[in-house]
Amino acid sequence: MTYCAAMKLDRGIVFASDTRTNAGVDNIAKFRKTYLWRNPGDRVLVLLSAGNLSVSQSVHSILNEALHESATNSESEKETLFTVNSLFRAARLVGATVREVRDVDGPMLENSDTGFYASFIFGGQIGDEPPRLFQIYSEGNFIEATEDTPFLQIGEHKYGKPILDRVADPKMRLGEAAKLLLLSFDSTIRSNLSVGMPLDLLIYERDKLDVNRQMRIEENDPYFNELSENWSEALRNAFSSSRELDI
Amino acid sequence: MTYCAAMKLDRGIVFASDTRTNAGVDNIAKFRKTYLWRNPGDRVLVLLSAGNLSVSQSVHSILNEALHESATNSESEKETLFTVNSLFRAARLVGATVREVRDVDGPMLENSDTGFYASFIFGGQIGDEPPRLFQIYSEGNFIEATEDTPFLQIGEHKYGKPILDRVADPKMRLGEAAKLLLLSFDSTIRSNLSVGMPLDLLIYERDKLDVNRQMRIEENDPYFNELSENWSEALRNAFSSSRELDI
Repeated sequence: MTYCAAMKLDRGIVFASDTRTNAGVDNIAKFRKTYLWRNPGDRVLVLLSAGNLSVSQSVHSILNEALHESATNSESEKETLFTVNSLFRAARLVGATVREVRDVDGPMLENSDTGFYASFIFGGQIGDEPPRLFQIYSEGNFIEATEDTPFLQIGEHKYGKPILDRVADPKMRLGEAAKLLLLSFDSTIRSNLSVGMPLDLLIYERDKLDVNRQMRIEENDPYFNELSENWSEALRNAFSSSRELDI
Repeated sequence: MTYCAAMKLDRGIVFASDTRTNAGVDNIAKFRKTYLWRNPGDRVLVLLSAGNLSVSQSVHSILNEALHESATNSESEKETLFTVNSLFRAARLVGATVREVRDVDGPMLENSDTGFYASFIFGGQIGDEPPRLFQIYSEGNFIEATEDTPFLQIGEHKYGKPILDRVADPKMRLGEAAKLLLLSFDSTIRSNLSVGMPLDLLIYERDKLDVNRQMRIEENDPYFNELSENWSEALRNAFSSSRELDI
């Protein structure tokens, strides 16, 4: 499994992903699942992926090949992540790419225990349009985050959902949202072996049309350890201070 | 789905289950999933069930029929929950009963989308033996809770696991453990529609060989609401007080 989550806020979007992939617990590897495309001043696009790594890497490669073709052949009319004029069109392009990979690999995968499974969080900003955030399914269709539910999760999402359900708010500052996502990851990592450090964190500030706030949080990162320990202590204190049932 | 959890402590065992069953979100019903057998002074046995309701009800009925047969026919040599001389043997009897149901209903269920799925938490105390707690699978095999992992969960277990992972300790008092299980249920109910109130809570005190602490916690129970609200506030306070990442 994998865990990725993102929150759309009034002030921008925060993305986070883990780096663990596994084919069984005896076959664990580290892969980056956050892909970033940027054309400063024009657009920023971020893709997080969960599911079958071969599918998500193929999607990434095909999207990049189209960009390369467009850059080297000025007569190319192929739609690319750098030519579409809205996030909605960009999400459609990613969805169409998932279907393209499914055409090739779907039949064999669906006949295996693995199945054809990949899901994506995709967001960013193009020109004057406000930032937008989508979740794209294995079938290539997608939904968009709204005010009511500002966060999206893919992969091993259940352990880290209660904290998001209780605290997430689109009015948060970007730093607060980053902290919240890290706590959601901490809960997940403590309870599930298939999600693991390091984490990739990317903060997109609205209307910046570029990215300069991203980092990898390694195992034993002092900030992350402090956050995790303080959180455990706060939970235990909160637990002790609430009264017991009279039964 | 369903959510059931139990904790084995030095001082006894606490059991909790929700009451929601559903066949799709448009077909929700309320069923008790905690079954209790007691022979005061001799034994207390508690069974919590998740999965296919027809399977768990059949298991319950077969176990009761054997008790009835044994009670009305003094020559019956059939092993029952009241004749086995250890919790391990009792768990084997439940496992064998699951297999008996599988023989009848398994083939048809396995050929449907539903599948044959039922899992159980089973615990209590028989005579001088210390209290024991088991998790019984659809296949009839089972595992036992130990000092290292004093809690067991079945059904929709992921949302409520982080709090148990952080706080559970076999040295807790029974009332503390009940509070912890209720918080685990609160997190699950907030995040997942397939788990719902009311809840059934049962506290077994070691060496009591009877049960006098059990209750149903209804929707809008004042204690549960207070616990849930205080917990949310404590989480939000803990969230605000931990520092943000410098990124």
